[in-house]
Amino acid sequence: MNPPKVWERAVFLGTGLIGGSMAAAMGQAGLVKHLVGCGPQALRARELELIDEDIDDPAMAVKAADLVVLAAPPSALPELLRQIAPAIDPEAVLTDVASTKVTVIRAARQVLGERFSRFVPAHPIAGSERHGPEAAHPELFVGAHCVICPQPETDPWALQQIEALWSDLGARPSRLGAEEHDEVFSAVSHLPHLVAFALAESLSKRPDAEALLGWAGGGLRDTTRIAASSAPLWADILIENSAAVLTATDQFLDACNALRAAVRSGDHTGLADQIELAASWRRRLRG
Amino acid sequence: MNPPKVWERAVFLGTGLIGGSMAAAMGQAGLVKHLVGCGPQALRARELELIDEDIDDPAMAVKAADLVVLAAPPSALPELLRQIAPAIDPEAVLTDVASTKVTVIRAARQVLGERFSRFVPAHPIAGSERHGPEAAHPELFVGAHCVICPQPETDPWALQQIEALWSDLGARPSRLGAEEHDEVFSAVSHLPHLVAFALAESLSKRPDAEALLGWAGGGLRDTTRIAASSAPLWADILIENSAAVLTATDQFLDACNALRAAVRSGDHTGLADQIELAASWRRRLRG
Repeated sequence: MNPPKVWERAVFLGTGLIGGSMAAAMGQAGLVKHLVGCGPQALRARELELIDEDIDDPAMAVKAADLVVLAAPPSALPELLRQIAPAIDPEAVLTDVASTKVTVIRAARQVLGERFSRFVPAHPIAGSERHGPEAAHPELFVGAHCVICPQPETDPWALQQIEALWSDLGARPSRLGAEEHDEVFSAVSHLPHLVAFALAESLSKRPDAEALLGWAGGGLRDTTRIAASSAPLWADILIENSAAVLTATDQFLDACNALRAAVRSGDHTGLADQIELAASWRRRLRG
Repeated sequence: MNPPKVWERAVFLGTGLIGGSMAAAMGQAGLVKHLVGCGPQALRARELELIDEDIDDPAMAVKAADLVVLAAPPSALPELLRQIAPAIDPEAVLTDVASTKVTVIRAARQVLGERFSRFVPAHPIAGSERHGPEAAHPELFVGAHCVICPQPETDPWALQQIEALWSDLGARPSRLGAEEHDEVFSAVSHLPHLVAFALAESLSKRPDAEALLGWAGGGLRDTTRIAASSAPLWADILIENSAAVLTATDQFLDACNALRAAVRSGDHTGLADQIELAASWRRRLRG
């Protein structure tokens, strides 16, 4: 086994939960000599010692970097890529951590031109309702999946470096097509967020919304936990992956309306059968 | 402070998660001399030593009992009440543990006649996706709310005994009107269950349902945890409380459709505003 690669200068464009945690983890593991952050939370990330230096201007920040990590919300990435493209070292490896892949890859291909081969699209599955640099910690990725979506143009050496980096941070990298990624995560992540948002929003608008807080049990706490997530980030993710999210939402609404109809008609057998479908699938999901 | 009342013979009509746990907790706390169980899970509950004796016939079981706990699914209670009414000791205290209160109280009032004054409607808030006597344990109610819904006819001494019993088991009893109870729990418990069932069911029907199990993260696990609950019990609860459940479901569907419309139109600001409503309410809910 080769010793892990030590990067000279890793630049994080975005230092929230994921970017901040990745920086902290790389620092702690001795995988990088100098950690630079850029973006609205970079100053705070430096105060928290997640990074060594914060630089306001993205193009200035990426100069002489051998690793550039795009860790801003997905909708900010096209403009960020335009700003940094002329300044990136031709040898630098680029990667990202976005929860949606098709639109990010499309933007990167358009903006980066020949340098697109050095961009390795990645998505560590380690989101949380906690967010910002305050929530960042170096153990965040231990045991987590990290989906890598290599493209036909992707340089094999760059791909290998990013997969090795995630392994070194304790994650389990695996490859998936970008379209398949967006389909899968519309179902296992984006739809559950939309549902949790709708549930919390509908309860928050009731006249007894205050009283409900006092009566909540484990069921409500669990079903709505991810509703406390970052609103601008999740507006981004849902819109970036809107095609798959809308399809999944419509399938969910169909199931919801079928349950509603069975409740309304007092169809005990039909209702129990529908619930048992849900329950038997859920029982196979550990944890 | 008076020493806790010790019951002579407590009979549990239903020995699943809640009945079984209540029996075990009373036994462990020395609050009862003889514990009798009745119902399809009573034999198993005796094998697990949650109760001392199991009796098939409800009318036989309740003879000479000074405490009768209705712990069967709500839809079974009217028939159970008819079976036991002629056999109950006039001095016995009756109580229940059902998640819905209006329909259970209506049935008890009709069937029990004068003895309705000895029935103290109660709902310990300690449900779980785990169920059956195997899931029962005596610590289940420690720190949990227990809602008591006294009626105009309710005997004050019987009420006091049941409130004291729940306190002795570690729960926090508090009083609520039956209609208000059913409203509140349609929002904090029944709707979240329906939503979790719909989410798990819609995912279970996708062609990639198997693959999704491997990609699930904490968000999906949390939002669907209660979807693994008992199907017949929850069909019961949702139908028993259908009026409030349907209203809450319609409010939820409105929120869901509004989020869907914002995703579809790419309205980032409107979507983020809706999510922020949800998130700020959820952040006030501890845990």
